[in-house]
Amino acid sequence: MFEIIQNLIKEKKISELHSMLDTINSADFPSLFEELEEEEIVIIYRLLTKEKAAEIFAELDSDIQEKLINVFTDKELKNVVDELFMDDTVDLIEEMPASVVKRILKSVGASDRKVINELLNYPEDSAGSIMTTEFIEFKADNTIQEGFDIIRKTGLKKETVYRAYVVDNSRNLLGSVDIKEMLISDRNIKIKEIMESNPISVLTSVDQEKVAKMFDKYNYVAMPVVDKENRLVGIVTIDDAIDVIQEENTEDFEKMAAMIPNEDTYFKTGVLTHAKNRIIWLLVLMLSSTFTGAIIEKYEAAFAAVPILVAFIPMIMDTGGNCGSQSSTLIIRGLALDEIKISDVFKVIWKEIRVAIIVGIILALVTSVRIYFQYGRVYAGQTINLSIVVGLTLIATALIAKLVGGVLPMIAKKLKLDPAIMAAPLITTIVDMCSILVFFQIAVRVMNI
Amino acid sequence: MFEIIQNLIKEKKISELHSMLDTINSADFPSLFEELEEEEIVIIYRLLTKEKAAEIFAELDSDIQEKLINVFTDKELKNVVDELFMDDTVDLIEEMPASVVKRILKSVGASDRKVINELLNYPEDSAGSIMTTEFIEFKADNTIQEGFDIIRKTGLKKETVYRAYVVDNSRNLLGSVDIKEMLISDRNIKIKEIMESNPISVLTSVDQEKVAKMFDKYNYVAMPVVDKENRLVGIVTIDDAIDVIQEENTEDFEKMAAMIPNEDTYFKTGVLTHAKNRIIWLLVLMLSSTFTGAIIEKYEAAFAAVPILVAFIPMIMDTGGNCGSQSSTLIIRGLALDEIKISDVFKVIWKEIRVAIIVGIILALVTSVRIYFQYGRVYAGQTINLSIVVGLTLIATALIAKLVGGVLPMIAKKLKLDPAIMAAPLITTIVDMCSILVFFQIAVRVMNI
Repeated sequence: MFEIIQNLIKEKKISELHSMLDTINSADFPSLFEELEEEEIVIIYRLLTKEKAAEIFAELDSDIQEKLINVFTDKELKNVVDELFMDDTVDLIEEMPASVVKRILKSVGASDRKVINELLNYPEDSAGSIMTTEFIEFKADNTIQEGFDIIRKTGLKKETVYRAYVVDNSRNLLGSVDIKEMLISDRNIKIKEIMESNPISVLTSVDQEKVAKMFDKYNYVAMPVVDKENRLVGIVTIDDAIDVIQEENTEDFEKMAAMIPNEDTYFKTGVLTHAKNRIIWLLVLMLSSTFTGAIIEKYEAAFAAVPILVAFIPMIMDTGGNCGSQSSTLIIRGLALDEIKISDVFKVIWKEIRVAIIVGIILALVTSVRIYFQYGRVYAGQTINLSIVVGLTLIATALIAKLVGGVLPMIAKKLKLDPAIMAAPLITTIVDMCSILVFFQIAVRVMNI
Repeated sequence: MFEIIQNLIKEKKISELHSMLDTINSADFPSLFEELEEEEIVIIYRLLTKEKAAEIFAELDSDIQEKLINVFTDKELKNVVDELFMDDTVDLIEEMPASVVKRILKSVGASDRKVINELLNYPEDSAGSIMTTEFIEFKADNTIQEGFDIIRKTGLKKETVYRAYVVDNSRNLLGSVDIKEMLISDRNIKIKEIMESNPISVLTSVDQEKVAKMFDKYNYVAMPVVDKENRLVGIVTIDDAIDVIQEENTEDFEKMAAMIPNEDTYFKTGVLTHAKNRIIWLLVLMLSSTFTGAIIEKYEAAFAAVPILVAFIPMIMDTGGNCGSQSSTLIIRGLALDEIKISDVFKVIWKEIRVAIIVGIILALVTSVRIYFQYGRVYAGQTINLSIVVGLTLIATALIAKLVGGVLPMIAKKLKLDPAIMAAPLITTIVDMCSILVFFQIAVRVMNI
């Protein structure tokens, strides 16, 4: 499609371009812009209506936003900033270099500038930092008809009209009312008669992850945010909550793969940043795994006598790592979704023990059969001993791995650390040490080395 | 809180109980019910208003739903089912045993039964299977006032009134209109003048994951679902989209930890099912890792001559696994969020090569220093050789791991497999083989074994 648009621009068929742009959904412009040249983007952008332009602007990548602002006249910039919702303006300011920020702040009125400064001051990833200050508010004594008049007058400037909030004269949050209730009720009754009292709300300081979870639980389209005195200061809308959910999931994926989480996309992150985010855990884990090496060194005599033992090290390490990462993943995810509580720790242990025994016995049996067929002829007498050693090691490894994998994330949570760091990589390193130690201990005893 | 409620029930203070229940948000009942006895739940449930009862019922765990239905009279059951939205009724039917399903179907009218059967027939995890059939629809020639009358008459029975849909006489989807637009427009103009034409919609057969992603992209509160003839058959609401996002993320976490994904929570899943979901990949990976063992066997002479080599096996395996899982996690997540496309494969390769070289060199240097201090005195002459062998192996391992981890998920996607299976466990197994082979190859050459 972007080729058609490029041609229309080249041939200066502005009216055709105009009507083509009308058929494109706002949400599709950002990916379209990625394919186009800067001058083309500017031409297209100037053909859009003010509302659509602002809507699209908020969703653009920050480098394209910066390019556009650099070609904007002061008036154009003011038009865009006027149409942006407060939370989007704040996001924009956080991404732009100082010179651009200065121009943006110059283009907003004094009262807006005050709000922006307040929003910028909320801690990162708090409800205050992702909320918007544009919401519909009623007084409890307003009639529904008056409520509709307020919406009609100010609705376009508000991020959502689906749910409105009721405050008293000191701006205390008294209730919330769904537009559905208003539409099916008599126009003359008062808002307070249909509003939901004691509405669920969050403090500005609450972590965004918790806010997102509450959307999931309460099925709201917007969540009111209050300050410590219960005064309504903003709302978080559900589209931002979805972004938070995805962001937090990505963060967990990255932490669980032993990386420092990173808010940018894969390609936006430079090679050096990628390397920096990955190297720290790699070093920690590499140095930790030397302990496993030290254990092996101690048993030099054992594998000098029975060299085949060495060939089983990868299998035991991999199986231990996999067993542990299965358990830790389930527990980390369960904790994240509030399906598992810290007080469940003994239920988890008991469950993991039973699963580990079943899984361990199956792994041991399959491996014994394999050892019999693979080594039966070569090692004759030692084959049964080898089967016993490896089989017992696998059962013990499954038990250790599932316990370590199940319990460590819960301990992390108890210590107010993120359970996601107790994932596969760290669990693997810990389980490695235990299982290799168990392996050689059993081998030395059973085989009389 | 549940103790107060239990006491009120015990003391039969029904009116106090009643007013206490009024203050509890519907979304908090499910967790409350988990703490109470069956008889207490029934007493509380019967004190709720019809609407609130249905709203809460939809969110309950299926075992509590079943218990409640078993004590319901036919009339009570009909009341609940009448109030439930179609998608919730279908979810309920899918969870209940046959005898309960029979009673539920008996309690719905013939036309509803037809709709339910249609909904049950959509493939699992398709848009059709998660949509609801209760939406507001207008004709293009309706005025806005007529639109409001329709909402007033039928609004309570519809899952959302925030966005309504416009269809022609053959039920073709013509447009959609946001309640905000209706509220700020003149009551006498026609719906078609304010509706968004060519609205984004999905086919009934589209995968739910794709539907959820479109919510994220288009910031909709509801997504219309059409059949092959573009006839509107239902809508998916945003609260269900959030559930899908969480479900799909959990599925990815589980797949990436080498498990068969499971829709139930950790505690709801029995020990045998847990074992079954985990054992298959454990067996596959355990048997695959015997190849690494076979490689080690081939170099028996090498580690018989220089036994210290064995002590480095865990470190090389772990580091390779961690390097690979970092890359594969980033690529799998990038693919899931559409931030990375299959056509980006060469960009990924180039990026991973550069990251791998930086990371590999740092790992190699740190390890060389460690080897010097740890073994400098004992192995004297061999120390430098050992440093060279391990250092080169680490650089090669980082390269192999990052390439395998980066590319395999993209190949999986190209082959229409789920990239999430190409995660840490499988990558680790593959990288193990390569890195151990490289290690001994380099060792044999450098150390002249």
